[in-house]
Amino acid sequence: MQSELKVGDRVERIMVVAKKVRRDFTGGKFLLFQFSDMEGILKGVLWEPTDDIERGVTVDDVVRVSGEIQEYQGSLQLRISGIEKVSEGEYDPSLFLPASGRPVDELCDEMLKLIAGVSDENLRGLLQAIFEDEGFRKSFVRAPAAKGWHHSYIGGLVEHTYDMVQLALKAAEIYPDVDRDLLLAGVLLHDIGKIEELSVTNHIDYSDSGRLLGHITLGVEFLDEYLRGIEGFPHELEVKLKHMMVSHHGLLENGSPIVPMTVEALLLHYIDNLDAQVRGVSQVLEKNTRRNSNWTEYVRLLDRYIYRGSEEAGE
Amino acid sequence: MQSELKVGDRVERIMVVAKKVRRDFTGGKFLLFQFSDMEGILKGVLWEPTDDIERGVTVDDVVRVSGEIQEYQGSLQLRISGIEKVSEGEYDPSLFLPASGRPVDELCDEMLKLIAGVSDENLRGLLQAIFEDEGFRKSFVRAPAAKGWHHSYIGGLVEHTYDMVQLALKAAEIYPDVDRDLLLAGVLLHDIGKIEELSVTNHIDYSDSGRLLGHITLGVEFLDEYLRGIEGFPHELEVKLKHMMVSHHGLLENGSPIVPMTVEALLLHYIDNLDAQVRGVSQVLEKNTRRNSNWTEYVRLLDRYIYRGSEEAGE
Amino acid sequence: MQSELKVGDRVERIMVVAKKVRRDFTGGKFLLFQFSDMEGILKGVLWEPTDDIERGVTVDDVVRVSGEIQEYQGSLQLRISGIEKVSEGEYDPSLFLPASGRPVDELCDEMLKLIAGVSDENLRGLLQAIFEDEGFRKSFVRAPAAKGWHHSYIGGLVEHTYDMVQLALKAAEIYPDVDRDLLLAGVLLHDIGKIEELSVTNHIDYSDSGRLLGHITLGVEFLDEYLRGIEGFPHELEVKLKHMMVSHHGLLENGSPIVPMTVEALLLHYIDNLDAQVRGVSQVLEKNTRRNSNWTEYVRLLDRYIYRGSEEAGE
Amino acid sequence: MQSELKVGDRVERIMVVAKKVRRDFTGGKFLLFQFSDMEGILKGVLWEPTDDIERGVTVDDVVRVSGEIQEYQGSLQLRISGIEKVSEGEYDPSLFLPASGRPVDELCDEMLKLIAGVSDENLRGLLQAIFEDEGFRKSFVRAPAAKGWHHSYIGGLVEHTYDMVQLALKAAEIYPDVDRDLLLAGVLLHDIGKIEELSVTNHIDYSDSGRLLGHITLGVEFLDEYLRGIEGFPHELEVKLKHMMVSHHGLLENGSPIVPMTVEALLLHYIDNLDAQVRGVSQVLEKNTRRNSNWTEYVRLLDRYIYRGSEEAGE
Amino acid sequence: MQSELKVGDRVERIMVVAKKVRRDFTGGKFLLFQFSDMEGILKGVLWEPTDDIERGVTVDDVVRVSGEIQEYQGSLQLRISGIEKVSEGEYDPSLFLPASGRPVDELCDEMLKLIAGVSDENLRGLLQAIFEDEGFRKSFVRAPAAKGWHHSYIGGLVEHTYDMVQLALKAAEIYPDVDRDLLLAGVLLHDIGKIEELSVTNHIDYSDSGRLLGHITLGVEFLDEYLRGIEGFPHELEVKLKHMMVSHHGLLENGSPIVPMTVEALLLHYIDNLDAQVRGVSQVLEKNTRRNSNWTEYVRLLDRYIYRGSEEAGE
Amino acid sequence: MQSELKVGDRVERIMVVAKKVRRDFTGGKFLLFQFSDMEGILKGVLWEPTDDIERGVTVDDVVRVSGEIQEYQGSLQLRISGIEKVSEGEYDPSLFLPASGRPVDELCDEMLKLIAGVSDENLRGLLQAIFEDEGFRKSFVRAPAAKGWHHSYIGGLVEHTYDMVQLALKAAEIYPDVDRDLLLAGVLLHDIGKIEELSVTNHIDYSDSGRLLGHITLGVEFLDEYLRGIEGFPHELEVKLKHMMVSHHGLLENGSPIVPMTVEALLLHYIDNLDAQVRGVSQVLEKNTRRNSNWTEYVRLLDRYIYRGSEEAGE
Repeated sequence: MQSELKVGDRVERIMVVAKKVRRDFTGGKFLLFQFSDMEGILKGVLWEPTDDIERGVTVDDVVRVSGEIQEYQGSLQLRISGIEKVSEGEYDPSLFLPASGRPVDELCDEMLKLIAGVSDENLRGLLQAIFEDEGFRKSFVRAPAAKGWHHSYIGGLVEHTYDMVQLALKAAEIYPDVDRDLLLAGVLLHDIGKIEELSVTNHIDYSDSGRLLGHITLGVEFLDEYLRGIEGFPHELEVKLKHMMVSHHGLLENGSPIVPMTVEALLLHYIDNLDAQVRGVSQVLEKNTRRNSNWTEYVRLLDRYIYRGSEEAGE
Repeated sequence: MQSELKVGDRVERIMVVAKKVRRDFTGGKFLLFQFSDMEGILKGVLWEPTDDIERGVTVDDVVRVSGEIQEYQGSLQLRISGIEKVSEGEYDPSLFLPASGRPVDELCDEMLKLIAGVSDENLRGLLQAIFEDEGFRKSFVRAPAAKGWHHSYIGGLVEHTYDMVQLALKAAEIYPDVDRDLLLAGVLLHDIGKIEELSVTNHIDYSDSGRLLGHITLGVEFLDEYLRGIEGFPHELEVKLKHMMVSHHGLLENGSPIVPMTVEALLLHYIDNLDAQVRGVSQVLEKNTRRNSNWTEYVRLLDRYIYRGSEEAGE
Repeated sequence: MQSELKVGDRVERIMVVAKKVRRDFTGGKFLLFQFSDMEGILKGVLWEPTDDIERGVTVDDVVRVSGEIQEYQGSLQLRISGIEKVSEGEYDPSLFLPASGRPVDELCDEMLKLIAGVSDENLRGLLQAIFEDEGFRKSFVRAPAAKGWHHSYIGGLVEHTYDMVQLALKAAEIYPDVDRDLLLAGVLLHDIGKIEELSVTNHIDYSDSGRLLGHITLGVEFLDEYLRGIEGFPHELEVKLKHMMVSHHGLLENGSPIVPMTVEALLLHYIDNLDAQVRGVSQVLEKNTRRNSNWTEYVRLLDRYIYRGSEEAGE
Repeated sequence: MQSELKVGDRVERIMVVAKKVRRDFTGGKFLLFQFSDMEGILKGVLWEPTDDIERGVTVDDVVRVSGEIQEYQGSLQLRISGIEKVSEGEYDPSLFLPASGRPVDELCDEMLKLIAGVSDENLRGLLQAIFEDEGFRKSFVRAPAAKGWHHSYIGGLVEHTYDMVQLALKAAEIYPDVDRDLLLAGVLLHDIGKIEELSVTNHIDYSDSGRLLGHITLGVEFLDEYLRGIEGFPHELEVKLKHMMVSHHGLLENGSPIVPMTVEALLLHYIDNLDAQVRGVSQVLEKNTRRNSNWTEYVRLLDRYIYRGSEEAGE
Repeated sequence: MQSELKVGDRVERIMVVAKKVRRDFTGGKFLLFQFSDMEGILKGVLWEPTDDIERGVTVDDVVRVSGEIQEYQGSLQLRISGIEKVSEGEYDPSLFLPASGRPVDELCDEMLKLIAGVSDENLRGLLQAIFEDEGFRKSFVRAPAAKGWHHSYIGGLVEHTYDMVQLALKAAEIYPDVDRDLLLAGVLLHDIGKIEELSVTNHIDYSDSGRLLGHITLGVEFLDEYLRGIEGFPHELEVKLKHMMVSHHGLLENGSPIVPMTVEALLLHYIDNLDAQVRGVSQVLEKNTRRNSNWTEYVRLLDRYIYRGSEEAGE
Repeated sequence: MQSELKVGDRVERIMVVAKKVRRDFTGGKFLLFQFSDMEGILKGVLWEPTDDIERGVTVDDVVRVSGEIQEYQGSLQLRISGIEKVSEGEYDPSLFLPASGRPVDELCDEMLKLIAGVSDENLRGLLQAIFEDEGFRKSFVRAPAAKGWHHSYIGGLVEHTYDMVQLALKAAEIYPDVDRDLLLAGVLLHDIGKIEELSVTNHIDYSDSGRLLGHITLGVEFLDEYLRGIEGFPHELEVKLKHMMVSHHGLLENGSPIVPMTVEALLLHYIDNLDAQVRGVSQVLEKNTRRNSNWTEYVRLLDRYIYRGSEEAGE
C-alpha cells in the first residue's frame, strides 16, 4: 500500500495502469490514474495530457511514470510529470505479481529427492523425465495454483504440490491399502495442466485454451507428451495415473468428468481440497483489513465469514 | 423370444449361459440353465451333469447346446443332451448382440461424402484421415452409442452420429452465426471416445479404461493421435474442436469438465441430447410389452412413464 | 447510440425519460435527464425548470423534447429548450422498442402455408382458426419471445416459432415415431401464452397476469377459447396438444408443472431450448462491445463467458 | 384382514383379483389367487380350472367367489368352488376402496354455510355456483386427495379441504393483512383438479389426462367453466384466485409453474403442506404393523422413519 | 423519516452515527454525517472539526448531536454545532431499534396462563421454571426473532412465539394424533436459543457464539440448564422435546441437523415456516415505498416480487 | 463363514437368530433357521418343534443351539437337537459383533500421552478429565464409528480418532496458522456423541436418542457435562471447541447446523472426511467377494464401483 511515500517525494516507477479517467473543467482537462505494483495502489493526476498519452496509454499497460507526491482530499497522489509505455521484455512481469514467500527452488529440489526414492521404476522414470526437464521446471516454479483463491501467486503451484506431498506421505504411512508411489505421482502431476491453463503476464488470468479445455484435459495431454517418450510404460499404470488426474476434483459438479474410483484417487482428492481450503482461508485471514471485528469480511467463495477470534483482534 | 419352438423339436444352438443353478433331490442332482441369444431366452435342464460340466461351464460362457424341447410348468424348456464350451474366435459375437436395423455402411459412406465437401481444408484433412482409416471404420461400425439407454446396439454409434449430422446441417442453415464445418466436425467426432469406452464382447459393457477415464478424455487423446500426423493444424481450430468434445454433455454435473462456450459447442450439446432422448424413448416404446395400458412401464432413466396413447393400445 | 449528433445540432425528438435527477446550486437548480429511443441514450439538462415540468414529467413518460446539442465533460448532451409529455396513442411505441430484422409478415405467411398442409383435419382446423384470426395475428407479430434474453424484441415470437418449425420438420423426417402434425401444432402453439404474459408498451415487461399465472397456464386458457368454437375435437388429441404446451420447459424446476411424456413433447422441449440458447448467445455476440478480448462480457444467464475467437477480435 | 374367518367357514364374496398364478404338478394343474376387498387379502386355490376361468379371469377383475376356508402352511385359504366375473355396474366400487371415516356429507354442509357467509359477493357467487352444483358435489365427496400418500381414500379430498379451511380461518384471524374471503376461496378450490386427475374405479389411479396435464392445469380449466357462466367477475380477482391455484405447491420443483406472490397464496401453500404431511404421517402410524419397535417402517416419501415412542410400543 | 423537521429548527438528539466522510476543499475541510434513530435518517455537516471529533467519533458510536436544520440540494440537513459520544449505559438502546407495535407484556402473560393449563406436570413444571424466571423474561421480551427478515425488531420473538401458539392450539384441535402439551412446549421453546444468538445493542446482529454455534445448539444447552434443576424429568419426554428444537428447520439444508420424526416436530416446523413467511411478507408490504406499481421491490430472501394488487396502488 | 465345519460334526454354540421360518408338510412341520455369529451364517432345521420353541424363540434372540452337521442341497446345515434362549448378561455380546483388528487399548494410551503434552492447560485439563475417566474409556473402546459404512465395528471409533490425530498433527506442522492444541482437542472430541448415538447390543444400531437428536447435539451435551466440572474454562475457547464439533460435517446438507468458520474447524472436517472415505473403501475392498472382475460390487453409499486393478484379480 505504497506506505513509505510522503508528500514531496519524487518518484519514478514502472507500474501497471489499473484505471484511467478523463475529467474536463472550464479551463481544460486532466487524466486521473490508478497505478499498481507489488506494493499496492498509487493514484495519480496528469494535467493537460498530450493526445498521444490520452489515447495511447490504456488500462493494463505497463508504464514508466514519474512525478511528485502531493496530498489531495486526505490521501496521497502522484502529480505526474512524465509517463511512457514500456514494452514487454523491458520489464520483469513478476514485479506486478505477488509471489510465494517460501523458497520455491528448495521445495522443488526436495521433491526431486523424493522422486529419486520412488520404488516403481516406471513411475520414477516418468516423474524424472518431467521434473528434471529444465523447460518444465522453469514454468513450474512460476505457475500459480489458482486465479483468485488459494495460492494465487507466483510459486503457488509448487507450494500447493509440496504441501500435498507431505500430507500424502503421511497418509501412505497410515493407510496400508495405499500404493505410496502411485499416490505420490498423482499428487505431483494432478495440477500440471494449470501451467497452460493460467497465463501469467502482468496479471494472472485464464489462457484461451485454459478456459476452453480446462487444466484436467490439458494435464492429461501434457502427460501424454512425456509418456510417448517412454518405452513400455504399463497400460494399466498409465490408466490409473490418468484416472487420478481426471477425477481429482472429486465430483462431476466440481469439474471432474469421472469420480475417484481407487483409494489413491480418493486420497488425492481429499488432500487437494484440504490444502486448497486451508491455504485459501489463511490468505483471507492475512489480507483481512477489517478493524474492530472478530470476523473477516464476507468470503464469497466460501459463502461465509471467517472467525478471527477476539484475542487476535485485541493484539 | 424363441417363439417358433414347440414341444418335441430337436435343437442345436450356440448360446450364452445367462444363469446356472444346481438343484439336489433325493436321488441325485440336476442343473437349471438359462441361455440367451438374439432371439431371446431359453430355459434348459441337465440331469446328472458330469463334474466337468458342473464346474467348467459358467455364466457368460458361450456354449454349443443340444437337446429336445419339452414343456415344464406351462413353459418350454430344453432337456439338454449335450453342452460344450465354444472358444472365442469360433463364433460370431454379434450373434448375441442386438444390432442396428439400418444400413450402417451406407450411412458411413454418406458421411464420407459430406466430409469431402467440407470447405475448411484443415478440418477436411483431419476428418478424412480419421474416417477413411480402415481400422477406425471397422471399430466405428461396430460401436454402440451407449451401454443401456439410447442406441445400445452394434452400429448405434454410426446411427447416432448420422442423425445428428442431419440436424446439424439444418441448424447450420438456420443460424447464420454457426461455422458449418466446425459444427460438422464436432458432431462427427464428439463420441469417438466411446469406441474405447465400451467393450463389445458377447455383451456391451464398459472397458476398464472407459470407466476410469471416460469417453470425453479418451476422445481427446484419440484425436491427438491423428493431429500428431498432421502438419500445421491451426492451434485455435484444434482448441475449438476439442472444446466441443470436452463440453458436449453441456453441464458439469453431466460429466463435461467444461461448459459449452461457443455457438457450435452449444448446438452440438443440444443436438446430442435431442437425438439421444428421442431414440431412447423410441426404444422404450418398441420394447414395451405392457398390455391393456396407454402407458409404458416406468422408465427409470427418465423417471417417468411414457404415454403410448389409446389408439395404439386399441390396435 | 445517437452517433450522428454533433455539437450545435438542433434536435426535436419523441423519447422516453429513462432517468431524471434534480441538482441544486447556489444560484438555483437544474434537472439532469437521460432520454432513450431506438438509437440509444441521450443525456439532457434543463435549467430552471418550471414546477409543472419538475413534478409532471417522470421516468417512463414519453416526451417531445427539443434543444441544442452541446459538449459537457467530454460527452454530448442536449441543452433542453422545450419538453412536454405525449399521450399514449399520439406516438408509435415501437419507436422505443427494438424489432426483428427479419420479414416477420412473410414468416407468418409461410407458416400459414404449412398449416394448410397439415393432414389431420382437426389440427388443421384448429391452427387455421387461430393463425388466420386477424386479431391474433396482430398480437402475434408484435410479441417478443422473452423479456430479457433470446428474441427480446418485437417480432421475436414469430422468429422463434418459425425457426423451431424448421427444426421440427427436419426432426419429423428423421424420427419415424414422430407424429408430424402434432409436433408442428405443438411448436406453433407452445408460446402463445406469451402474448398475454409480456406487455409491450414503450418497453417490454411482464403483465400482472403474466407474472401471476405464467405463459403456460395462459396459453392453455387461450387454446381453450378456440377449442370451444370447434365441434368434435377429439379429447385425446386435445390432451396430447395441451400436454406439449404444459411440459415444454422440460423440467419442473424450469416451470413446467408436468414433464414431457410423449415423443412429440420431448422433441418440442429440446427444439425450444436449442433455438432459445443459440439465438440468445448470438444476441450476446452481436451486442458485445468489449475490445481487445477474445471473449464477451460475462453472461449472467448462462453463468459463463462466450468465446468470440481471436480472428474476429483481429478484424 | 379377513380376521373373523376360521377353518370350515363357507364364504361367498365379491372381491377384486389381486394376483393369479398357475401351477402344474404331475397330475394336473391349479390356480393360486389372492383376492382383496376392504377387509384385506384372502388367498385362494382353484383345482383343475376350466379353460374359461383360466383365461377369462385376470388381475383387477371383480369376481363373485365362493368356497370353503381351509388351512394351508399355517395360514387360511379359500378352496374355491365357484368363481365368476361381475360386470361394472353390478357392484359398488367403494366396496374395494378405503373410505373416510368422517361424516363427509356433514363436512360439505358446513363448508356450504361458510360459503354463504363470504362477504365478497363475486367470490360467494362463484363458490355457490360450484359447491351447490349437484354434479360437482357427487364427484367431490368421492374424490381422494392423493394416490398414495395423505388422504388416499374416498372422501379424502373433502377431509383435506375441510381441515385446511379450519386452519385458514384461524390464520385469517391472526394475520391482519390477509383477505379472508380470498383465502377461503383459494383453499376450497385449490385441489378441485384432482377430481379429474385421479380416476376412482376399483382402485385409485391417475387418469390419462391427469398424468399428462396435472391437477393444477385441470383445476384452472375447471374454474374457467364456472367463470364463463358468471357476468362481470372482476379480472383482477380472477387472476388472484387462479394465482393461488397455480402456485399452491410453493416451488417450481414441486410442480407449481409459478411461486406464490401474494400473502394468501403463501398461506394456502403452507396450510396445504401442513395438512398433507400431518395426515400422511398419521396414516403411516395407523397402518404400521411393526412389532417391538419404537419406530415405524421406513417411510419412503419422507425418506425417514417415524418415531412412535416407547409408551405406545409398550401398550 | 424525520418528517416533522423544517428549516430553522434547533435540534438536540441522541443518535447513532451511520456514516461519516471527510471532505477537503481549498479553504479547509468538513465532515459529512448520517445519523439514525427510530425516526429514520438525518444528514449532518460539521465544518472545521477538531481533531478529537475527527478521529474519536466513528461509525456505530452513539452521540449527542445538536445544531440547526438547513436545506441543502433539496433536502434537509443538520448544520452541527455540537457533537459528543455517549457511553453505553447513558442511553436506552431501544431508542435506536424498531420495536413490536403489539403489547408484548400482555402476550407473555397470556402465554403464562396457557402454561398454567398444561396437563402434563413435567412439561408444566419445566415451562413455568423458564417462563416465570424474571431474568429469562427480561431477555425474552427484548429479543427479535431474526436479524433481517421476519420479526426483526424488539419483541419480535414474543410475537412470533405467541402467534405460533395460536396456530398450534388450533392444529391440536384438528389433528387427533397430536400431543397438545408437547406441541405447545415445543412452540414455546423452539427459538429460545435466539436470545443468545442475536445480540441487541444499538442494532441487531449475530453474537460470536450465535454465529459459531447457532440458535439450535444454544437452545438445547439453554434447556439443559433448566432441566438440571428438575428432578425426575422423564428421559423420553426430554428427548422428544429436544428433538422438536433440533429439527424445527425441517431440512438439513436449512440448518437442522436432524429432520422431524414425530407428528409434533413436523407441525412445529410447518407452523414456524408459515408464521415467519407470512410476517416477513407483511413487513415487505408495509415498508414498500415503490410508487405507481402493483408490485413491491424485488425481495431477495424470497427470490420474487410480491403482488400488492392494483386497488392498493390506486388508493 | 463357518468354513471349518464338515458333515457329521457335532456342534454346540451361542448364536443370534437371524431368520426363522415355519414350513408345513403332510406329515407335520419343521422350522428353518439362520443363525449368525462372528464366523458367519449357519443354517439349521428343527423337526417337530415344541410350542415353547416355536413361539418363544424369535429373531434377534441369542440362543444356545446344538446338533449335528448334515448336507442339504449342496450346502451344510445343522440338524438341531437342542435350542434355548440365553439371557442378556450370560453371554459376551462382542461375540456377535465384528471388532477392530488393531490394539485399541494401546491406541488409547498413545492418545493419553499426546493429551499430556498439550500446552494449553485448559484444553489439557478438559481432555484429561474425559479421556482418563474410566467410565468414558470403557464406552469409548467399544464404540463403532458408524452404523454401516466406515469403522462399523467395535473399536472403530478409537481407530478413526487415532488415525485422524496422526493426520491432524501432520497438518499442524504444515500450516502455521493452525492452533495445534485446539485442532487436537477437536479431533479427539468430534465424534464422542456417537457413544450415545449408536447402541451396541448383539448388533450395531441407532439408539432412540441417537436418531432423534444426532451425535452432534449429543456430543455438545456430553462436553457440557465435563465443562461443568471445570472452573474458569475460557468462554471463547469453549465456543471454538464446540464450533468444531457442531460444524464437522462441513455442510448443512450433511447434517452440520453450522459450517466451519475457523481454520481448525475446516481442517477437522477435511481430515474426518478423508479418513472415513478411505477406510470405508478399504472395507469394501476387503469384503468384496466378486470373482473374475477388476471391480468391486456397486457401492451404494459412494454411488460407484471401486477399481481393484487387474493384478489383484490375477492373484
